[in-house]
Amino acid sequence: MDMESSVPPGFRFHPTEEELVGYYLNRKINSLKIDLDVIVEVDLYKIEPWDIQDKCKLGYEQQNEWYFFSHKDKKYPTGTRTNRATAAGFWKATGRDKAVTSKNRIIGMRKTLVFYKGRAPNGRKTDWIMHEYRHQTSEHAPPQASPLLSSYYFLAMF
Amino acid sequence: MDMESSVPPGFRFHPTEEELVGYYLNRKINSLKIDLDVIVEVDLYKIEPWDIQDKCKLGYEQQNEWYFFSHKDKKYPTGTRTNRATAAGFWKATGRDKAVTSKNRIIGMRKTLVFYKGRAPNGRKTDWIMHEYRHQTSEHAPPQASPLLSSYYFLAMF
Repeated sequence: MDMESSVPPGFRFHPTEEELVGYYLNRKINSLKIDLDVIVEVDLYKIEPWDIQDKCKLGYEQQNEWYFFSHKDKKYPTGTRTNRATAAGFWKATGRDKAVTSKNRIIGMRKTLVFYKGRAPNGRKTDWIMHEYRHQTSEHAPPQASPLLSSYYFLAMF
Repeated sequence: MDMESSVPPGFRFHPTEEELVGYYLNRKINSLKIDLDVIVEVDLYKIEPWDIQDKCKLGYEQQNEWYFFSHKDKKYPTGTRTNRATAAGFWKATGRDKAVTSKNRIIGMRKTLVFYKGRAPNGRKTDWIMHEYRHQTSEHAPPQASPLLSSYYFLAMF
């Protein structure tokens, strides 16, 4: 997407987590109109991290974060576990999930994932890091039965 | 100015120097329309650095740079030296001017200034830093006889 034609010069997409979840993810889930379609949809299971950059370019130099929506894919048709494997490797969660708040209320959760090349339980850790945001209104909510859509974003370490 | 009503959520004003000089300053000097009036005009000689923040708010939290246009005021009616004194202190240049380029061509120069409280040649150095941009097409150009308007911006150290 070429930002230059839709946003005045000098503006960059640097959303807060509150904006990502409260505006972009919320409107996407509810099929509401989004002011400017800066966040494209990709199929995370069919694309490698190093190919995502090209798809999520925002039209200015020195971008080091890439934003996209992706459907969650289940590991087993009846289960709740998420499959995060691609052809070249897999995404593995790291650390604890963190709450995203707005006006002191929880509006979503953030999971941090690292990309490993190869197949679990083996695989070689890379510097690709992803933050996966999901809509959730309580920190202790059970895993959602049908998580429709999540906003993810990439933060490249190099 | 309240950005929230004019730019989609998640966008912040983080212009490059090329955009500041090549778009904003250039259009201001030539009285051309600016997409969005994010850069207000202030009279730098009548306002203290700590009061500028309020005038140049962009409507989102954690802003630590303030942009504004200001006319240059001459120290002496017939001279080329610039008067940069306010009621509480003065702005003093530091270091060497730096060229601002676009496609390998010089489009302007940047001067860095520090605010001192008190009166020159005395005065107590503060943490207020300003970058002053001027339109200029060669690094060795003589001081302009009539610098009509310059873009300045503040970078607060705290």
